[in-house]
Amino acid sequence: MKDVNVGICGLGTVGGGTFNVLTRNAELIAGRAGCNIRITRVASRRHRDDMDLGSVPFSTEIFDVVNDPSVDVVVELIGGYETAKELVLAAIGNGKHVVTANKALVAVHGNEIFEAAEKAGVVVAYEAAVAGGIPVMKAIREGMAANRIDWIAGIINGTGNYILTEMRAGRAFADVLKEAQDLGYAEADPTFDVEGIDAAHKLTILASAGFGVPLQFDKAFTEGISEVTPYDIAHAEQLGYRIKHLGIARRRDEGIELRVHPTLVPKSHLIAQVDGVLNAVLMDGDAVGQTMYYGPGAGAEATASAVIADIVDVARISASTGALRVPYLGFRPEAMENLDVLSMEEVQSAYYLRITALDRPGVLAKIASILSEHGINIESIMQKESELKDGRIPVIILTHTVQERQVNRAIEEMESLSDIDGKVVRIRAENFN
Amino acid sequence: MKDVNVGICGLGTVGGGTFNVLTRNAELIAGRAGCNIRITRVASRRHRDDMDLGSVPFSTEIFDVVNDPSVDVVVELIGGYETAKELVLAAIGNGKHVVTANKALVAVHGNEIFEAAEKAGVVVAYEAAVAGGIPVMKAIREGMAANRIDWIAGIINGTGNYILTEMRAGRAFADVLKEAQDLGYAEADPTFDVEGIDAAHKLTILASAGFGVPLQFDKAFTEGISEVTPYDIAHAEQLGYRIKHLGIARRRDEGIELRVHPTLVPKSHLIAQVDGVLNAVLMDGDAVGQTMYYGPGAGAEATASAVIADIVDVARISASTGALRVPYLGFRPEAMENLDVLSMEEVQSAYYLRITALDRPGVLAKIASILSEHGINIESIMQKESELKDGRIPVIILTHTVQERQVNRAIEEMESLSDIDGKVVRIRAENFN
Repeated sequence: MKDVNVGICGLGTVGGGTFNVLTRNAELIAGRAGCNIRITRVASRRHRDDMDLGSVPFSTEIFDVVNDPSVDVVVELIGGYETAKELVLAAIGNGKHVVTANKALVAVHGNEIFEAAEKAGVVVAYEAAVAGGIPVMKAIREGMAANRIDWIAGIINGTGNYILTEMRAGRAFADVLKEAQDLGYAEADPTFDVEGIDAAHKLTILASAGFGVPLQFDKAFTEGISEVTPYDIAHAEQLGYRIKHLGIARRRDEGIELRVHPTLVPKSHLIAQVDGVLNAVLMDGDAVGQTMYYGPGAGAEATASAVIADIVDVARISASTGALRVPYLGFRPEAMENLDVLSMEEVQSAYYLRITALDRPGVLAKIASILSEHGINIESIMQKESELKDGRIPVIILTHTVQERQVNRAIEEMESLSDIDGKVVRIRAENFN
Repeated sequence: MKDVNVGICGLGTVGGGTFNVLTRNAELIAGRAGCNIRITRVASRRHRDDMDLGSVPFSTEIFDVVNDPSVDVVVELIGGYETAKELVLAAIGNGKHVVTANKALVAVHGNEIFEAAEKAGVVVAYEAAVAGGIPVMKAIREGMAANRIDWIAGIINGTGNYILTEMRAGRAFADVLKEAQDLGYAEADPTFDVEGIDAAHKLTILASAGFGVPLQFDKAFTEGISEVTPYDIAHAEQLGYRIKHLGIARRRDEGIELRVHPTLVPKSHLIAQVDGVLNAVLMDGDAVGQTMYYGPGAGAEATASAVIADIVDVARISASTGALRVPYLGFRPEAMENLDVLSMEEVQSAYYLRITALDRPGVLAKIASILSEHGINIESIMQKESELKDGRIPVIILTHTVQERQVNRAIEEMESLSDIDGKVVRIRAENFN
């Protein structure tokens, strides 16, 4: 058995976790891998005084790892776009395999990186880039090989899910965000998490590997959770739904839906029960039906678990011939389709609408007739006299599935009525059936 | 790209599903696999008049498949122990790879079959043998490669889970079983499902691949669900627990716990929410923490999904050298440990106890002192005056985690009291923390 020599770039949370788990479980991992996985080089801009690297050479220049002839596999854990891309392409250029946990890198530069790797005959693995410790890329690329995957829905940002979970107790978004920041669950600048950008990176990768289409992050739609209110959460619950920040990808004949936004999901569905910082990815295949993968989407050792699984895979895969390796995005390049990402107006969904109506006779009839004219059918409607305040009363409607364009036109028309006050609140809903 | 020629043995539910999915999704599967997967031979004792096999040669002699020189991969879907074993060993002997969905075969004869395959240099794949369409063997053998797995808990028999789910509405076991038989969810002889034998087959396989120990089905403990009553289900719910028929495997320094029995699980845990015929496998790894895999555990195309994923893997794996293949039970043979399966007396668990006490002063004190003498701490206790009937009153106790031996001794002592009527009902409980 030949040893596999690993060089780690980046010694932050995940880099530290990877070093520690590889060291602690070395014997167990060798028993699974069929070879020893040795760390022969570590580089990071900052020293970590809290870590004991033993006899492993350390430098503050990450390109040292890429240029070290003894290194077989470069583990990229520095994050970010440009330097990471340069590092990974340099590694590929030097004939080294790469393992990365960098979702932004894969979602934005993946097409280019995979093409370079394919040409160079090396392997680039990225299980840790999607949903942290959950082996969901393995499930979608290999476990689902028999299936035409119709849709994917994921809770793939722990910070957002934590915030929405806590808001069910009636707390405001800003309050919970602050708490999450204090607890270290949310960054000082929470934009990436709460606006859905991080989730869109992961969703882009899942959609490509599920459907066999190129990565198209720039066309993903994102809507954050900062406008979600405890009021709407409570009323969704009364309708039998829970609000989750979902990434949804759906394959349709016309193209791909690719979107991250707050979404009502039936409380009776398992994905509605995924709370706190945990992640889950649900997918529907034509043969298997619905399967779901659940676990920690972040954290030092949880993410390291996926990084190391990739290293073990690379050790195996690198011994096989190129044509029979697991394709980067699940499908061989020549089997991929250039399907477009659909615009949001073309997306199909159900909708939760909250309309602030003036308390006048005939308002409900006007709302109902506008919806009907736009071909929108109502699943539930809720209006409570007890919620009348200052002559205004909320009307809450859950629609059946329609084209988003229809709902946009109906909302415009409703907002132009003198009987309707302010903006109509709109949250998308999915029934998964 | 070389085509892979597949021969299917057995054309029942799963065999038919495999034929249909491989045919329907042939192009998509080739795009993922990097080669064409062609069915070149089918054999089954019975003809299936409802299926169109096209130009694929069919025979009623299953060994024809094994002896066909054009067949690269033999797919064993006949079920049962002895003929299946003979068939698989003959295929291996003829240098063919094997894919099987046969959990009984793997759990009972797996050690011998894997050894033969290892010697012959062929691959035997069995994803479909555990939890049907859920790619859980891939998760545990490859996705968890970095982890020391501490325990595994699974709802791995759909029939049993369906029955327990329906019993929550207050219905008796026998009633629901009959309905499940009428719906085709349960066999005419339901022993394999409701007594936990089927679940023990799957648990045995999961435990070996998780812990790196040989398959030891004969030492698995099974307790069925036929004694579970709507009364105990309701009282468990009041304590915040749900009763599930779990397969539990735990790795301890002294050995392996391997047991299938009704189990109280906290309602707040995701696994408690897995209802109906669906399956889920929860596992705890030292690096990743808890992950869970959910989906259909049976059905024609769901199981076919796993069979075909294995065929695709075999096509890839067969191109790599033996030493770097994924080991059969997750670990290379030389890395496996010969840990014993512990007796049930050595198992550690919490316990739900229902004691029928005579309504006399001091009974509760006697019960409490017996528990205390055996070192058993009480988590919750419930006794309701309103349930007093014929001078008898149920006392319901949930204990903290103890050794099963302690509980057995305490129960013996309680049952010998003149204040206690009949047998003490005992159901194990797990908190997963």
